Amino acid sequence: MSGDIKKIVLAYSGGLDTSVILRWLQETYSCEVVTFTADIGQGEELEPARAKAELLGVKPGNIYIDDLREEFVRDFVFPMFRANTLYEGTYLLGTSIARPLIAKRQIEIANEVGADAVAHGATGKGNDQVRFELGYYALKPDIKVIAPWRQWDLNSRTRLLDYAEQHQIPIAKDKRGEAPYSTDANLLHISYEGKALEDPWVEPDEDMFTRSIAPEKAPDTPTYVEVEFKHGDAVAVDGVALSPAQVLTKLNELGGQNGIGRLDLVENRFVGMKSRGVYETPGGTILLAAHRGIESITLDRGAMHLKDDVMPRYAELIYNGFWFSPERLAIQALIDSTQQQVNGTVRLKLFKGQASVVGRKSPNSLYRLDYVTFEADSVYNQKDAEGFIKLNALRLRLGAMAKGS
Amino acid sequence: MSGDIKKIVLAYSGGLDTSVILRWLQETYSCEVVTFTADIGQGEELEPARAKAELLGVKPGNIYIDDLREEFVRDFVFPMFRANTLYEGTYLLGTSIARPLIAKRQIEIANEVGADAVAHGATGKGNDQVRFELGYYALKPDIKVIAPWRQWDLNSRTRLLDYAEQHQIPIAKDKRGEAPYSTDANLLHISYEGKALEDPWVEPDEDMFTRSIAPEKAPDTPTYVEVEFKHGDAVAVDGVALSPAQVLTKLNELGGQNGIGRLDLVENRFVGMKSRGVYETPGGTILLAAHRGIESITLDRGAMHLKDDVMPRYAELIYNGFWFSPERLAIQALIDSTQQQVNGTVRLKLFKGQASVVGRKSPNSLYRLDYVTFEADSVYNQKDAEGFIKLNALRLRLGAMAKGS
Amino acid sequence: MSGDIKKIVLAYSGGLDTSVILRWLQETYSCEVVTFTADIGQGEELEPARAKAELLGVKPGNIYIDDLREEFVRDFVFPMFRANTLYEGTYLLGTSIARPLIAKRQIEIANEVGADAVAHGATGKGNDQVRFELGYYALKPDIKVIAPWRQWDLNSRTRLLDYAEQHQIPIAKDKRGEAPYSTDANLLHISYEGKALEDPWVEPDEDMFTRSIAPEKAPDTPTYVEVEFKHGDAVAVDGVALSPAQVLTKLNELGGQNGIGRLDLVENRFVGMKSRGVYETPGGTILLAAHRGIESITLDRGAMHLKDDVMPRYAELIYNGFWFSPERLAIQALIDSTQQQVNGTVRLKLFKGQASVVGRKSPNSLYRLDYVTFEADSVYNQKDAEGFIKLNALRLRLGAMAKGS
Amino acid sequence: MSGDIKKIVLAYSGGLDTSVILRWLQETYSCEVVTFTADIGQGEELEPARAKAELLGVKPGNIYIDDLREEFVRDFVFPMFRANTLYEGTYLLGTSIARPLIAKRQIEIANEVGADAVAHGATGKGNDQVRFELGYYALKPDIKVIAPWRQWDLNSRTRLLDYAEQHQIPIAKDKRGEAPYSTDANLLHISYEGKALEDPWVEPDEDMFTRSIAPEKAPDTPTYVEVEFKHGDAVAVDGVALSPAQVLTKLNELGGQNGIGRLDLVENRFVGMKSRGVYETPGGTILLAAHRGIESITLDRGAMHLKDDVMPRYAELIYNGFWFSPERLAIQALIDSTQQQVNGTVRLKLFKGQASVVGRKSPNSLYRLDYVTFEADSVYNQKDAEGFIKLNALRLRLGAMAKGS
Repeated sequence: MSGDIKKIVLAYSGGLDTSVILRWLQETYSCEVVTFTADIGQGEELEPARAKAELLGVKPGNIYIDDLREEFVRDFVFPMFRANTLYEGTYLLGTSIARPLIAKRQIEIANEVGADAVAHGATGKGNDQVRFELGYYALKPDIKVIAPWRQWDLNSRTRLLDYAEQHQIPIAKDKRGEAPYSTDANLLHISYEGKALEDPWVEPDEDMFTRSIAPEKAPDTPTYVEVEFKHGDAVAVDGVALSPAQVLTKLNELGGQNGIGRLDLVENRFVGMKSRGVYETPGGTILLAAHRGIESITLDRGAMHLKDDVMPRYAELIYNGFWFSPERLAIQALIDSTQQQVNGTVRLKLFKGQASVVGRKSPNSLYRLDYVTFEADSVYNQKDAEGFIKLNALRLRLGAMAKGS
Repeated sequence: MSGDIKKIVLAYSGGLDTSVILRWLQETYSCEVVTFTADIGQGEELEPARAKAELLGVKPGNIYIDDLREEFVRDFVFPMFRANTLYEGTYLLGTSIARPLIAKRQIEIANEVGADAVAHGATGKGNDQVRFELGYYALKPDIKVIAPWRQWDLNSRTRLLDYAEQHQIPIAKDKRGEAPYSTDANLLHISYEGKALEDPWVEPDEDMFTRSIAPEKAPDTPTYVEVEFKHGDAVAVDGVALSPAQVLTKLNELGGQNGIGRLDLVENRFVGMKSRGVYETPGGTILLAAHRGIESITLDRGAMHLKDDVMPRYAELIYNGFWFSPERLAIQALIDSTQQQVNGTVRLKLFKGQASVVGRKSPNSLYRLDYVTFEADSVYNQKDAEGFIKLNALRLRLGAMAKGS
Repeated sequence: MSGDIKKIVLAYSGGLDTSVILRWLQETYSCEVVTFTADIGQGEELEPARAKAELLGVKPGNIYIDDLREEFVRDFVFPMFRANTLYEGTYLLGTSIARPLIAKRQIEIANEVGADAVAHGATGKGNDQVRFELGYYALKPDIKVIAPWRQWDLNSRTRLLDYAEQHQIPIAKDKRGEAPYSTDANLLHISYEGKALEDPWVEPDEDMFTRSIAPEKAPDTPTYVEVEFKHGDAVAVDGVALSPAQVLTKLNELGGQNGIGRLDLVENRFVGMKSRGVYETPGGTILLAAHRGIESITLDRGAMHLKDDVMPRYAELIYNGFWFSPERLAIQALIDSTQQQVNGTVRLKLFKGQASVVGRKSPNSLYRLDYVTFEADSVYNQKDAEGFIKLNALRLRLGAMAKGS
Repeated sequence: MSGDIKKIVLAYSGGLDTSVILRWLQETYSCEVVTFTADIGQGEELEPARAKAELLGVKPGNIYIDDLREEFVRDFVFPMFRANTLYEGTYLLGTSIARPLIAKRQIEIANEVGADAVAHGATGKGNDQVRFELGYYALKPDIKVIAPWRQWDLNSRTRLLDYAEQHQIPIAKDKRGEAPYSTDANLLHISYEGKALEDPWVEPDEDMFTRSIAPEKAPDTPTYVEVEFKHGDAVAVDGVALSPAQVLTKLNELGGQNGIGRLDLVENRFVGMKSRGVYETPGGTILLAAHRGIESITLDRGAMHLKDDVMPRYAELIYNGFWFSPERLAIQALIDSTQQQVNGTVRLKLFKGQASVVGRKSPNSLYRLDYVTFEADSVYNQKDAEGFIKLNALRLRLGAMAKGS
């Protein structure tokens, strides 16, 4: 096996696990390993990853550290939010949407450095392995994929630590013990799963949360915020024009301060089992409500209902890792074609865990007061309703007659 | 026209509008009018409606007053909640779901009393006329339908009041002036629309709300509640077995005390325009979260995703008034076939406007800790994931190769 | 009423009915009427329509006669065929797809001549009135629409003929008697309905058909034809590059000679009743089979299944007249986004009523012999299938275990 | 590995491949092998399979030979046809629908004889392995599955023949050479794939076909047939009441004589590649047309369109092997709930490859001549159409106005 691989690009966080993987790859394949560390807003310093990679023998020219935050929000988060995407009715797909970007950049680097393999640190039981690898294969069909967690025998915490010690891999003190949960973070969300959360009947500890204050401790007076949209994407907050990553950063801040965006659920993994996850998505939760709000006055009913009908499937595609599939792209074309007129401003009330739309206005508004008012019929003839109802009822009447006979 | 109608069953609330209608029907058609007043949990005394009907000359035997609360929740609200139904992503369909029940009972009475016509007090611009009339026609295809608001010339408040005065119809003092909004209420919700709400940029006044305390004034400590489900329907709250209407009443109480269930939106009416509505659905909001919660551990992924895919269409059917259509019944058959194993208990935290699932357990749980844990693979072989991914990726790879060529 | 209208654009065929309408409009509205006659391949001379319009007093400058055949096939028929569109599983929408083009051109003319109204000759029981008028309103929301068949009292053949005689409208001899069926024709199809076809148990007479020879009389040896596609549209037949209208004309010729494209059905009209129609769509029937054929080797499975899933809804939108709706456009964006690689050639066998795909090839083929062959596994590892199946089965197994317990 | 398995139930055809498998299982696992051979209408004698199993050392009590033809048609084929099921627009799923029945019976036998494993003869590249194994796992989640083609090293024809010779397995003379295609047959269809069909540009040889005469050689005069339906299932042919299997047998006969039901396509396998298949489904092709025909006059539009919308997904589920999944069962509940009124008779013309509906009648017909006729409006008021159109157009007009502004 080891002889086949010439150069590997590893998705490298700088943490213990991927450091062990880095060394294990070097040993197992006796080849150059290129590390790739991305800033997608996870809120960690990246320079330590560089130092650690160097310490583990990676050549400086083989260490890639990229700030992908704007690309992440602009090309992944925002397109997804145009669809009001929720997986299984509740989950905002914070982890799912980051994986294809990492896969994409990893493949770009593989092409640049002439690598024939890529590696990642996702386990064999989760969704992320699928998301990474479907991305790799879709973008570079002949790539070789190394998934150490499925291949090696370091399948317990103890063995992993042993391996680290044997190979002089530094172990942070707080990583000695077993973490109470594993997390994944980016600019859209942070997730928690495993160990302390494994009993779905037990509520998570308050001290687990890191991105939002507890609703109980949030301010006693509401915060109001205005989000402005252009072609379905948020472009300004409270009147200040912002870049995509800036918008999300700002909404995270406001949401976090008001205890918004916590979610505790049991979800269905693509690999077949159910798992419990807890998420914090402060800005995304506000953004979803705001986008629904602006669509409510600017989007035609037919287009809206069509979008609603395909949304669960679109969410499933993203959750399952099919971001680069032809069908995700086709649904995206459908979604995007509806957003031209989705312009305007939404006003939200943020209060102790909740983001509520309380106002919306738009230069393209389809809401017409003159059509709704109860009184005179200058534009809408109430008598038209009779014919409308009668023809809509016709098949029901014919059906009832046929049964009656 | 007047000569054609022999006997009319009127959906009669006892309020000013339907009292005017009652008198107008008597005058216009010179025939017997039967009044039907239903308790569907709107929270008003019904006996005054009887007195008023008698005052307006309706024979005692022609006055029907029915308590339909249990039927409402059992046969309409619960089936709808089995589908986690939301119209346009947010609206719980509180008004929509009550209309078919009223239409059904009205037709039953028409059959009992040998009436050849039914009448309702919905206007020509709204959805309710459609919901009533599609119900009538589906259940009794040869029924004659009278919709006074589309037919008469009393199209302004002034004319209506004039007519009432001319015909000795009592006018409650608070009905003299124009109401700031019109409302519709039942055990599931109360709605507000019109006048003071017509500018969708303006937040509604706090004093409009009647079913929920303001989140700002709700208790500073969370309330926890446990809801138990059997075959997808809630059957007990906090360990106490309750009838359908009792469950909803109890959840309304808990929700209302915690500021839960307010919703402010612009929706797309079936008749073609957008309108702004504000809703309070305290118990329903809890119930929806709880039902999603119990499904999350008891419902197979395939069944859940299928339900999610058809839900928006199901919601649209109910919103548009097609409750008695073959396609609503067919989707209901699909939904109901998935609920056999949806049994267990959900624990929710209610706090200042939010109902959050924090625990779920079930004798039929599909959540299996042994399959999720990171360590040893007694039941799940991580190596299987490789083949799973490779075959899922195959078409993507072939697609990339074909493009590359 | 008559005073309101200043100038009317009439969709004018030159036949008896629209000639009566022309005169009736002139009389009723005392205003200028502009006639618009389109060649969409119905196979009739258009110049007689000009003469007749002049005879009825239409000014030469108010007579529009346009050849829309290329636009019809390029912008309406081909986009629809990209979706493999069938209404209710069988109908190729030959009438439905022509109506929006006529409406569009009629509105263009109305804008050119400054007309404030348009009129058509469709009856009040059919789909065409809806298709025309939804087109008008979508393209010019303040247009006034005149539908004489819903408005006048010439509701019997006798009255219509009387009116024609009274107003010196020439009546072709063969129009004196009642036609055994009404027809609609364009380059895609011809339809028959009414009278002689009204009993859905009775087979139509052979002599009704005009575009195809009876299968029984078609050649005893098959005809083979090759259709070449580029981005999902047919661009050549038997190696000869052709324009859109030429392609369809050629395929109509080949199909008609081989008895292909007859269809006898009962369909559900948008206005609520069922009706029986018989259609001849020789070229379209070949084109549909050919397009499916080229997609079968060039289109990714995910994209194909997505297209198949939305197709019935897309068909319904076209049938119901929503060609210019945002949701039709959104689905079109989805469809079109999948057709880039749909290039290549399909070989079909035409024989006595049937068009069968017997060969397909493409420079973008996704069909890979090396992946299909039973023997050695250089590219596809059969062992991968085990993991694929195991993970796909996991939820089914967990479900069975939960039930078993 | 070998020590784990105690008793195996093998799906055994009696042919060379499964005979080799039988011996290989005995050798590899040193355990009892139970053979199961089903008559699902494949048109072969089953007694030779018994003799051969005995010859290979299977105890008489371990040889199961079952006639499953009625169960096959009643519980698998007919439910599928209620949905008018076509995979990828054309394929009638003849192979797919038989697999779950075989899996089900195999598991029943495993339970009866106390076997802990099942085995099948499907290869690692096809769909059938998936269909078998998903069936096994869904019905008996702890079953062990043996798929020799994925496990052994007899991966070429030569090795297989060598093994057979070495183990005294009789080899029919015509099995010495490589077959030009592999086939699968049952009462619904016969399939051909592989070798001679591998170039999708090349038309199959006429002498390949076994269930239908060539259209060119079919009778020169049409055959007419009447199929009667009860609750969506065919119950009589030409007035003669027949059991499900008898109906299909009779339609196969009529279809075969008239060259009906041949299909040549490239399809997308679940395991990720495209493959070319040729099918003969004479009776099924007639049945599909007939079922659509009876639905056309008895099924409500809303129910029909809903069915059409979910059909492709239902087809995909069956094709992919998810017959026993909760979502297939849920869709079946939807489908079945629509078939109560699907009663009546359809008349078809069979001629040289084509089955065309030419008549349909029903005691539950929703087709009402009085609603369709062009003249007087006793039941349908043409003026109603105006209101119907106006309200349907309203959102389009508002959209156009908003864009115009």
